[in-house]
Amino acid sequence: MQIDQIMQQAATAYEQYKDIPPVQRAAFLEAIGAEITARREVLVQAAGEETNLPAARLNGEIVRTTTQLQRFADLIKEGSWVEAVIDTTPNIRRMLLPVGPVVVFGASNFPFAFSTAGGDTASALAAGATVVVKGHPAHARTSLLVFEAIQAAVAQCGMPVHTVQHVTGDYHTGKALVVHPYTSGVGFTGSLQGGKALCAYAAERENPIPVFAEMGSVNPVVFLPQALHTRSGELAETFAASIALGAGQFCTNPGLLIGLESPAFTQFQQQLGAALEKTAPQKMLHPGIRTSFIQGRSRMFANSEVTLPSAPVPDFDDDAVRPSLALTTGAALLANPVLREEVFGPHALLVNCKDKTELLAVLRSLKGQLTTSVMATDEDLAQWQEVIDVQITLAGRIILNGPPTGVEVCAAMVHGGPYPATTDARFTSVGTAAIRRWVRPVCFQQFPDTLLPDELKSANPRAIWRLVDNQFTR
Amino acid sequence: MQIDQIMQQAATAYEQYKDIPPVQRAAFLEAIGAEITARREVLVQAAGEETNLPAARLNGEIVRTTTQLQRFADLIKEGSWVEAVIDTTPNIRRMLLPVGPVVVFGASNFPFAFSTAGGDTASALAAGATVVVKGHPAHARTSLLVFEAIQAAVAQCGMPVHTVQHVTGDYHTGKALVVHPYTSGVGFTGSLQGGKALCAYAAERENPIPVFAEMGSVNPVVFLPQALHTRSGELAETFAASIALGAGQFCTNPGLLIGLESPAFTQFQQQLGAALEKTAPQKMLHPGIRTSFIQGRSRMFANSEVTLPSAPVPDFDDDAVRPSLALTTGAALLANPVLREEVFGPHALLVNCKDKTELLAVLRSLKGQLTTSVMATDEDLAQWQEVIDVQITLAGRIILNGPPTGVEVCAAMVHGGPYPATTDARFTSVGTAAIRRWVRPVCFQQFPDTLLPDELKSANPRAIWRLVDNQFTR
Repeated sequence: MQIDQIMQQAATAYEQYKDIPPVQRAAFLEAIGAEITARREVLVQAAGEETNLPAARLNGEIVRTTTQLQRFADLIKEGSWVEAVIDTTPNIRRMLLPVGPVVVFGASNFPFAFSTAGGDTASALAAGATVVVKGHPAHARTSLLVFEAIQAAVAQCGMPVHTVQHVTGDYHTGKALVVHPYTSGVGFTGSLQGGKALCAYAAERENPIPVFAEMGSVNPVVFLPQALHTRSGELAETFAASIALGAGQFCTNPGLLIGLESPAFTQFQQQLGAALEKTAPQKMLHPGIRTSFIQGRSRMFANSEVTLPSAPVPDFDDDAVRPSLALTTGAALLANPVLREEVFGPHALLVNCKDKTELLAVLRSLKGQLTTSVMATDEDLAQWQEVIDVQITLAGRIILNGPPTGVEVCAAMVHGGPYPATTDARFTSVGTAAIRRWVRPVCFQQFPDTLLPDELKSANPRAIWRLVDNQFTR
Repeated sequence: MQIDQIMQQAATAYEQYKDIPPVQRAAFLEAIGAEITARREVLVQAAGEETNLPAARLNGEIVRTTTQLQRFADLIKEGSWVEAVIDTTPNIRRMLLPVGPVVVFGASNFPFAFSTAGGDTASALAAGATVVVKGHPAHARTSLLVFEAIQAAVAQCGMPVHTVQHVTGDYHTGKALVVHPYTSGVGFTGSLQGGKALCAYAAERENPIPVFAEMGSVNPVVFLPQALHTRSGELAETFAASIALGAGQFCTNPGLLIGLESPAFTQFQQQLGAALEKTAPQKMLHPGIRTSFIQGRSRMFANSEVTLPSAPVPDFDDDAVRPSLALTTGAALLANPVLREEVFGPHALLVNCKDKTELLAVLRSLKGQLTTSVMATDEDLAQWQEVIDVQITLAGRIILNGPPTGVEVCAAMVHGGPYPATTDARFTSVGTAAIRRWVRPVCFQQFPDTLLPDELKSANPRAIWRLVDNQFTR
């Protein structure tokens, strides 16, 4: 089918879908979750075959996916997310309304949670937008099976037939979707190269549209001296698990481990290497990702300023890879921008800094990140406040004494960050605030209650929190 | 002084300024207002000489400017604007934090309210950002006088010396400011051409930054049949005043007046023409704007599908201009995109539509707008709901039974709209929500109270509204 026809259908469906009351939209999101749960075994089987991800991980991801759908259902049932603001003199009222049909690109590394019925789709449907999903080619069959679940929910809930549509294709298809005049927004999780291309297409349009691209991160972790001194063994275990998790195929994988040159940091490096050596080989998502990983790692190992801290480059067991470490100095990282780049997979670069000044310079040299972490005791923190000050400028989420992997789907979550971690640091792609990507404020002046959406009527029939004459009230 | 040095100073000042408590930032905003008020006569005199705007208007604009400063001071004293969200299990907390130094371009048509100490500067300073203002060359002296008021407030309140800086220059200066690596955001009010250029500069950067450009609008007004039937005379007076206000030099000037071909609409056109003929000639802001206005209007009059409804093209009295009207048909407007373009100045195009279908097609043919209005009785509204449905997709603000000029500085205001009215329909440049342009959410995971900003501490020492475990609470 032609993209033009698909987008026309999305626009027509939008005219109906946007006016469907939130309670019914919520029931629709819940029905998608139920249909996915009902197909769990088939979905896990298909995704396992297509992505090499183990069943336990895939089952967990399905729970996350249905949980996300439920969170957005709960959000729109409660209703306060529309940010209703009312000024009575003169009578001016605003709320968030959906922007129109949106395009969602499935992610390779999350066949469920960031794909066909993942967070982008769930948040867009919750907002009142219709969705065209471009399924990721690396798990096309899984994507179609999830789309079947969505279609079942559409039928069951009496939603417009084209509320969600599914397309497959190459980058020409992707471009056609982004430049189509009916497209109002784009969600993408993938490479910097891919995200930049989509942004360029969007900027070419007569009316540019927002592209929310989440494009990766090295997720720098700072290990402060007392923390290393008191619990290097525990930290090594924690970070070995975080580096190896899902064969390192997470946007939040810790890729840069920074500390002061010291016996404690050296000991941590050895403990981390030993912990990683115990890790079983894991297959990566698809051969292309594996090739990129091996090449990226080789480029890093080839750098004369990079050494291997403990183990040699691990062998590759058939299709599988094993986690690896490399070691460099703060001075080398400052001199070589390539050492600051992400190697997508189970790999981390340890950075020995000669003093606090160099460590701060290393942090300041980094581009925008999704997360940054700091391992510290209270004593460390009293002496290293500057580190946290720099980290705040660097990322959307700052973690104290924990690894960056594991992104909670909650109201406070920010899975986003300054460019190039994402294209728009003002938004998040995980957590309920992700709904804001698909809306804009609309202001009604001098409208009587009869013509206003329920959210803005004087009597507050939806009983939502609103800012009325500068007072929060319900 | 070199732009690089200026931006370095802005970045250094930001490091201090961002940590200044909101109460002190609020006092600083109030002090700027007081310093402006203290200089009122000098400022009105200078701006009158530079912009041709009458003293009454300039005095009013000064009140608006100081009111804006006060509103933002009140907003940050109250504090809930930071959108604090706390999830306790696991311990994840987020709030809005400033992005860094921002660049503000003064607007030609508001020498105070959208210039040196205008809404962009006030909202950025309130957010905790430092500001570099590029003064508009058409009122350079006024801009410097306002900057002196700001500097007096900086000294009086003990703010960092470079919290606000002032530069002048041509578009090379503007580009250098936008592409500088320390610049984190841009505010602009002006032409589509100017806004597009700034966006292109921002997109060229290694790390693209948001450009909030407000670039104009034709502000379409729909006159429904019963409203015309019952009160065409009153509507003619209202819209004559709105078209002529400030020599039509408002972003919200009503440029397109749409109705059904009918005796009532014809009568309205005659009444409007007669009301406009009584308007005194007004000088425009500067000769360049006057030339553009005359040329734009001539291009419109030259179109074979455009006629003059009542009066001939008015004469020009020296430097002054008089308001004018033109008339066309819905079919002609649909066929000629040039008829949908803004003519900046006191001019409106009347559009005779042959039926409801054509009227809806006319609305759908328009690009994004700041505002759209509808003049209607209850009876009209019962029959014309589709018009409002289309208008919602078109603009940031929809006005019932009122002209679009007059933008209230309040919490509910949206002065924004789909491209090309602005570059980002998700934000407003007027009203307290304008502060959101200069912030991004930052998430703190597992931080103890001692390390958190006051806004996120468990005890809520600032007594702000927060979403705690999905419940709004204070």
